[in-house]
Amino acid sequence: MALIEKENGITVLRPAGSQTPPRTWRSWFIGRPLATADAPHQTIGKLVGLAVFASDALSSTAYATQEILFILAVAGTASFGYAFPISVAIVALMAIVTISYEQTIHAYPNGGGAYIVSRDNLGELPAQVAGAALLTDYILTVSVSVSSGVAQITSAYPALFEHRVAIAVIMVMLIMLINLRGVKESGITFAIPTYFFLLMMFLTVGIGFFRYLTGSLGAVPNPPELELHGMAQPVTLFLLLHAFSSGTAALTGIEAVSNGIPAFKEPRSHNAGVTLIWMASILGTLFLGITFLTGQIGGIPSETETIISQLGRTIFEGRGFFYLAMIAATAVILIMAANTAFADFPRLSALMAGDGFLPRQFTYRGSRLVYSRGIIALAIIASLLIVVFQASVSALIPLYAIGVFLSFTLSQSGMARRWWRSGHLAANQTVSEHGSTLHYDSQWKLKMVINGFGAVCTAIVMLVFAVTKFRDGAYVVILLIPFLVFIFWSIHNHYRHLAKRLSLRNFRGAPPRHPRHRVILLVGGVHQGTLAALRYASLLSDDITAIHVSTNPEESERVYRDWEWWGNGVRMVILDSPYRLLLEPLLSYIDQIDACRQPNEIITVVVPHFVPRHWWHNLLHTQTTFWLRMVLLFRPGIVITEVPYQIE
Amino acid sequence: MALIEKENGITVLRPAGSQTPPRTWRSWFIGRPLATADAPHQTIGKLVGLAVFASDALSSTAYATQEILFILAVAGTASFGYAFPISVAIVALMAIVTISYEQTIHAYPNGGGAYIVSRDNLGELPAQVAGAALLTDYILTVSVSVSSGVAQITSAYPALFEHRVAIAVIMVMLIMLINLRGVKESGITFAIPTYFFLLMMFLTVGIGFFRYLTGSLGAVPNPPELELHGMAQPVTLFLLLHAFSSGTAALTGIEAVSNGIPAFKEPRSHNAGVTLIWMASILGTLFLGITFLTGQIGGIPSETETIISQLGRTIFEGRGFFYLAMIAATAVILIMAANTAFADFPRLSALMAGDGFLPRQFTYRGSRLVYSRGIIALAIIASLLIVVFQASVSALIPLYAIGVFLSFTLSQSGMARRWWRSGHLAANQTVSEHGSTLHYDSQWKLKMVINGFGAVCTAIVMLVFAVTKFRDGAYVVILLIPFLVFIFWSIHNHYRHLAKRLSLRNFRGAPPRHPRHRVILLVGGVHQGTLAALRYASLLSDDITAIHVSTNPEESERVYRDWEWWGNGVRMVILDSPYRLLLEPLLSYIDQIDACRQPNEIITVVVPHFVPRHWWHNLLHTQTTFWLRMVLLFRPGIVITEVPYQIE
Repeated sequence: MALIEKENGITVLRPAGSQTPPRTWRSWFIGRPLATADAPHQTIGKLVGLAVFASDALSSTAYATQEILFILAVAGTASFGYAFPISVAIVALMAIVTISYEQTIHAYPNGGGAYIVSRDNLGELPAQVAGAALLTDYILTVSVSVSSGVAQITSAYPALFEHRVAIAVIMVMLIMLINLRGVKESGITFAIPTYFFLLMMFLTVGIGFFRYLTGSLGAVPNPPELELHGMAQPVTLFLLLHAFSSGTAALTGIEAVSNGIPAFKEPRSHNAGVTLIWMASILGTLFLGITFLTGQIGGIPSETETIISQLGRTIFEGRGFFYLAMIAATAVILIMAANTAFADFPRLSALMAGDGFLPRQFTYRGSRLVYSRGIIALAIIASLLIVVFQASVSALIPLYAIGVFLSFTLSQSGMARRWWRSGHLAANQTVSEHGSTLHYDSQWKLKMVINGFGAVCTAIVMLVFAVTKFRDGAYVVILLIPFLVFIFWSIHNHYRHLAKRLSLRNFRGAPPRHPRHRVILLVGGVHQGTLAALRYASLLSDDITAIHVSTNPEESERVYRDWEWWGNGVRMVILDSPYRLLLEPLLSYIDQIDACRQPNEIITVVVPHFVPRHWWHNLLHTQTTFWLRMVLLFRPGIVITEVPYQIE
Repeated sequence: MALIEKENGITVLRPAGSQTPPRTWRSWFIGRPLATADAPHQTIGKLVGLAVFASDALSSTAYATQEILFILAVAGTASFGYAFPISVAIVALMAIVTISYEQTIHAYPNGGGAYIVSRDNLGELPAQVAGAALLTDYILTVSVSVSSGVAQITSAYPALFEHRVAIAVIMVMLIMLINLRGVKESGITFAIPTYFFLLMMFLTVGIGFFRYLTGSLGAVPNPPELELHGMAQPVTLFLLLHAFSSGTAALTGIEAVSNGIPAFKEPRSHNAGVTLIWMASILGTLFLGITFLTGQIGGIPSETETIISQLGRTIFEGRGFFYLAMIAATAVILIMAANTAFADFPRLSALMAGDGFLPRQFTYRGSRLVYSRGIIALAIIASLLIVVFQASVSALIPLYAIGVFLSFTLSQSGMARRWWRSGHLAANQTVSEHGSTLHYDSQWKLKMVINGFGAVCTAIVMLVFAVTKFRDGAYVVILLIPFLVFIFWSIHNHYRHLAKRLSLRNFRGAPPRHPRHRVILLVGGVHQGTLAALRYASLLSDDITAIHVSTNPEESERVYRDWEWWGNGVRMVILDSPYRLLLEPLLSYIDQIDACRQPNEIITVVVPHFVPRHWWHNLLHTQTTFWLRMVLLFRPGIVITEVPYQIE
């Protein structure tokens, strides 16, 4: 039985059946439902924090070098020497972005993703642009990381190459299921693979350098063939910038820490900041090391064997235990990077839905307290991309980093504007907005310059990226982002308009009771179901008209005679339908009534509906009410009521 | 405005809008809607009757010879000499069936198809078997005839061979559209192609015989290659029976006249009977002539060139004007044969639906007064068969004639039983049933023997067919027909059960008015839509409970406070939902109310529903009512009412 409790002076009923977790077939896949009160509140330290938030950023070392070489390849292998200087430029950019984000972390202790920072400091339109860029970016993170992870596996086991698309899609589905279960980010599950990856990468790079210094590092044995279409082109500035753009994929994921600040132990801004700097340092070191060594061994970019695999089998001399361990570590960290997007995408889409820019359904938490709709949407779109691009990292990369750099630019511009505003506050004035507080900062000029410089750098990179990669596919994203912003805006308009129309503010109060209630009872034939509907109709009003649409005069006469006997004196109107239509004569009749309707008079159309024993029995009956509802829905003051009559 | 008229003492309203033909996008395809009163009543004479009803039967001469040769081919070309004796046996069988049907035509002046004859004389189960056999047969008529028609075209234009499936499906769709328009069987449209075909065939066969007799008829120049899989097998009795079975396809369509008797001018039975005999004579002559000449020229059965095409280019010496005219005439008559099935299938399915063995929807006549659902169903199934069997006549033939012979057997057994009953009536006694009258017939013994002999012959042929063609595909039909009968029977049971449950016979009268009417108003949030629903609810009853399902305590408190102000004093119950579900707590609550409900008390659940300006805006809202309706549908005494609130 129901428990009744008082909460804040409000009586709350707890119906017996709804207080235990419901069991459905879904429980088998994703575990038993969790109550709202079960939401975990858990914080993590720096070491675990690094493991949780770094996988996305660190995993990009698995493909960034290779993507630079892919572009340089059009100028022949001689141009591969430019890869290292390009990497140095990318690491310098990484340092600028890191310092800039370090400031964001301290200003936004509750989490400062590009969407929030833009919304707070630049306004709604830039925030939606950032949102569109980030959502695109998260989707591509899943596609690129999983594709790259699968590429590592197929490098080790070339026989699997032809099944790469299927393997990648299955992996996305598995990650989706895991996220629908809602992994408690327990740290240990993340820490083991991340630190295993770091161990293997430092071991690889360390042994590589040792062998380079001792002169025992040779070239790649049996390197994959370089695919050259036509003559080798000259090395141009455009080509170098193009290669640089591809390499900037290394920066993706660097913003993850700033989204996750609330997960850190106190002092959380400090801990998150330190974690960010560690992460950037490790990322820069590994990226430079890998690029340098790749140049030394003469690695060749290829769809069938990754640079990481070539590096591994050169340094470890063959596909032995260490090689396999390194490939496994790389594949796992890439899959984990995809997992990061599965945390970020649903969180951001719920945030945007809460602001009314995405369908409200994205804010609902599923049975396991996760934003299930966001998770499923991400999995579907990322899988589609994998199928369309045949799990090719090089094909996906041109779509990728532009969203990242757009969000970097907006986030840092927002921070620069914030510092400017902070500099114009009085010394002890505090402005509180959206959960972050703004107060006077004596160092505002320096901080503004740092974030501003970051914004300018990333904006330039974004432009370089857009120009050099336009034809490779970047145009898709350049067109997509404004389109997404338009969609978000339309959704927002709909909700705002609705809220205004439904609002009780300035509402003059309800009009008086409807003075008249007319009931129209549809009669197809006279049987027990009709009589049940008549009984229900007579509960509603004394003004009932039974309507029979006549397509066959003999049948109508029978209905009329039966009604005379069974119809309880309710008047019946026969509507002639020469074209054997059902809805149209009825609508014409309602039109006539409508024309002389009094204000506030309401019409209820009662439709008898027999409910067969099995749903598929409905195939044996016409579904008139469905169409009637569709047509009458848009007319004010008309309500349709189906009176079910259960057979059995 | 509405016209009001009295018809048979019943007032009939003619709402203004529904008295003119409605114009929709469909009118463009199938013409303006026709009023029920527009149904044509037109009768035809023998010459036109032959054209209308003979196309199906005559067209089988286009493939019957070829199908015999296909089977004999496994024994090598030497065995082709057996084709002519086999044809003679088939023509003898045709004579027996014709005489047998001649008697049916006189006994059933209102149309005596196998379904009606079986139903009247053998009972419901045999009738359903006949119905299943005939429906299968009509579908195959479309697939086989169109495939054969396309094969004639690709024989003349081999380049089209690879597009044969697409061409065949497009043709089926065109025939469907024409039938949805509802061709008035105006005679002339049928007469021209049928008589053109007869002219061309008699010309071909005539010139062929002339050249044969004058010794100038050579062999086929460049005949298609005979595909022989493995060694030539010996000629066995089984092989000859197998070839005979294939050739019986020539008999398909011979029953068409007996379905169409009401279309003939009076004396209709006489006219129809004479037409049947003409038709059978022409069919037999042509079939024998074609088979004989094919043997003389050494025609080779082939998927790429039909026997008719080989005959044509041998007799007319090349692909000249006469050859092309003959091929065109053959292709057109085959397409018209398919058109015959488009008249028969919808008519029979409407008849069976009227008897309650198929979904009632098949009895509805569309805007053009034709049974549109039957026409569409036939087109879809026949197209599927064409795609599955790649428009190959030889692959479809094993499925074909078994249904035809099953219906022949049932029809003639029914007639035999009828004569037996007629012989046991008193001289002036008349039994009237289903629109046909049975009276004493002095020649009943002779007539019974004729029909009985026909039944035995066709039953034997059916068995031979089933055995010899079992593995070629006949097993599909042998399994399908009992399955279809089972489906028909289940549908019938459903309708019968429903009618019994709804029947007012032995109904003790309606129970008294519901003593209490409880209204449950679902409140998600308090806004103008909610208040409109509250206003409606208070029209229904004074016993209203507003229910709010709480997934978020803060929101619930806001709703509760707003309700205190706006809720007009209606009591509100807050249902706690710890698992964030909406339906389950509500259902638990209704369960509780249900448990202590008085007899005849009724519950109405009122759900506010805002109607957005555009239907796709619904994607931005959850569709709770839909699921609520699904769940509550099966509970007696609960009605769900959505109160629409139009935004705009």
